[in-house]
Amino acid sequence: MEAVNLLEKFGKFSDYWHPYIVAESNGQHIRLAKLNGEFVWHKHDDEDELFIVVKGKLKVKFRDQEVTVREGELFVVPRGVEHCPVAEEDVYLINITNAETTHTGSVESDITISIDEMERI
Amino acid sequence: MEAVNLLEKFGKFSDYWHPYIVAESNGQHIRLAKLNGEFVWHKHDDEDELFIVVKGKLKVKFRDQEVTVREGELFVVPRGVEHCPVAEEDVYLINITNAETTHTGSVESDITISIDEMERI
Repeated sequence: MEAVNLLEKFGKFSDYWHPYIVAESNGQHIRLAKLNGEFVWHKHDDEDELFIVVKGKLKVKFRDQEVTVREGELFVVPRGVEHCPVAEEDVYLINITNAETTHTGSVESDITISIDEMERI
Repeated sequence: MEAVNLLEKFGKFSDYWHPYIVAESNGQHIRLAKLNGEFVWHKHDDEDELFIVVKGKLKVKFRDQEVTVREGELFVVPRGVEHCPVAEEDVYLINITNAETTHTGSVESDITISIDEMERI
């Protein structure tokens, strides 16, 4: 049993849009990812997605609005709602969602990392 | 839909060991609390408890060891394990656990805040 230092873990990888698992709690993965650029439009039919921004500014586009999540802020993407994260600068993100949930939801894309491929760091 | 600014929310209350709900995701509450001093020994039989320290240094005592969680670190208290949080200085904590879980687990104490009493800020 030991604490997880977030910045130390962020220092262990440099690829974008690739989630790494750092802990698990109540069937939820705590994943870290670095974001830059625009992701893909997708949704998670049955799971909410909790974002906590550790560094940078994340824009979450919805079909009818846009939410900005800044460093030190959290945001819950409700289940079933199409969204597209956009990072105009480097963003360090904590992403907490069900352990069975892929980051691109029901959309299969070139940047999809399956649960099996997702490493624990 | 809007982002939750953590420091702004921490500015809305000053009492210690009193969790406030700021969001919910996948049946989990995201709660904030300010800690100072020693809490009570307790456990949560069926729920893990995720701590993220936003400010200060939290000691989590177990019967056989002790874990220190510093600012920018996270820690999962596994279900069923007796623990006692100790804050020798002011600690600002994000606590994520099942929405049905009280903060003192199976122990009923003077400082227990029931789920019904827990406000959303």
